[in-house]
Amino acid sequence: MSFSPLINQLIEALRCLPGVGPKSAQRMAFYLLDREREGGRHLANTLLEAIEKVGHCEQCRNLSETPVCQLCASDSRDRSLLCIVETPADVHAIAQATEYKGLFFVLMGHLSPLDGIGPLDIGLDKLGERLDSGEISEVILATNATVEGEATAHYIAEMAARREGINVSRIAQGVPMGGELEYVNSSTLSRAFLERHRL
Amino acid sequence: MSFSPLINQLIEALRCLPGVGPKSAQRMAFYLLDREREGGRHLANTLLEAIEKVGHCEQCRNLSETPVCQLCASDSRDRSLLCIVETPADVHAIAQATEYKGLFFVLMGHLSPLDGIGPLDIGLDKLGERLDSGEISEVILATNATVEGEATAHYIAEMAARREGINVSRIAQGVPMGGELEYVNSSTLSRAFLERHRL
Ligand SMILES: [Zn+2]
Ligand SMILES: [Zn+2]
Repeated sequence: MSFSPLINQLIEALRCLPGVGPKSAQRMAFYLLDREREGGRHLANTLLEAIEKVGHCEQCRNLSETPVCQLCASDSRDRSLLCIVETPADVHAIAQATEYKGLFFVLMGHLSPLDGIGPLDIGLDKLGERLDSGEISEVILATNATVEGEATAHYIAEMAARREGINVSRIAQGVPMGGELEYVNSSTLSRAFLERHRL
Repeated sequence: MSFSPLINQLIEALRCLPGVGPKSAQRMAFYLLDREREGGRHLANTLLEAIEKVGHCEQCRNLSETPVCQLCASDSRDRSLLCIVETPADVHAIAQATEYKGLFFVLMGHLSPLDGIGPLDIGLDKLGERLDSGEISEVILATNATVEGEATAHYIAEMAARREGINVSRIAQGVPMGGELEYVNSSTLSRAFLERHRL
């Protein structure tokens, strides 16, 4: 026996969420239909609206519903500092955990030649223009402490080194090797940020 | 700093899902917007359709997108057996784990006087009519092995005892006390079902 077709479809559809296997998808479907229809309707509509309206900031590539994100548009940030991260979640983690007041650049990934992900796919052409603008005095590399994150940091460090007057730093290895920035606790992340070293 | 308003709203909305806290809601929102927009759109539309079209079976109260559910409409079930469960997930668990070929009746909850949930709220008026129909020869009580589940089973056992010719059984206490039926492993559940005893 199986569920009615629509319930089966809902269980299947819920599995697109990260970390949701068949059992939790089933639990979520029943929960939504049993007792949280209003919340479910709200979730569905919010999700559709976000998917339709949230794009990428023209300047930093972060997720944004406006052409330029709030952070890039802010006049209270130090525009000479540029912190390079892999994902929007990393921007959030750093902004929460540290006193950093500069701008960000979000790669939306990392270099991964085996998967066919090259410099253009992570916006390094745009980053190059940014570095050429003469506005940046320090690039802080805050990619993940993974093999791909390290390789990406190394690649960007070389890009920056070719421009004059730009210091390049890497956040300290307080971040455990192999760890994803998003899941590091705040104090570790904060210290790693303070102890960044010039490359 | 916070995310853009729509992203914040999406993170908030995702928290209506059971077991999803702030951190996983954030992770889900980024994941959907970063790399799973098609899946997200499909999820939203499926959820809206399910919420709109899935109601309750007229006969057993299970979730169903047709007035009478597939199981109640089937002509291959033994219509003299009626298994009483608390939730649609329990129907699924029993149908998967056991050889049971009768019908179900889904309370969509349990008696809970402190929360103001009485007999009418769990459909016992409809169950009474069902018992009066003369069609039922055995009622199998498969409510959870919790205090409320036991009390509900006891209440229904008394209802059935007032009708003539209806045997009442309770699934065996192979189900661990305090455990929720939905999470019991198949073999335990199957044995408990086979070893049900008359009340
Ligand atoms: Zn931006
Ligand atoms: Zn039914």
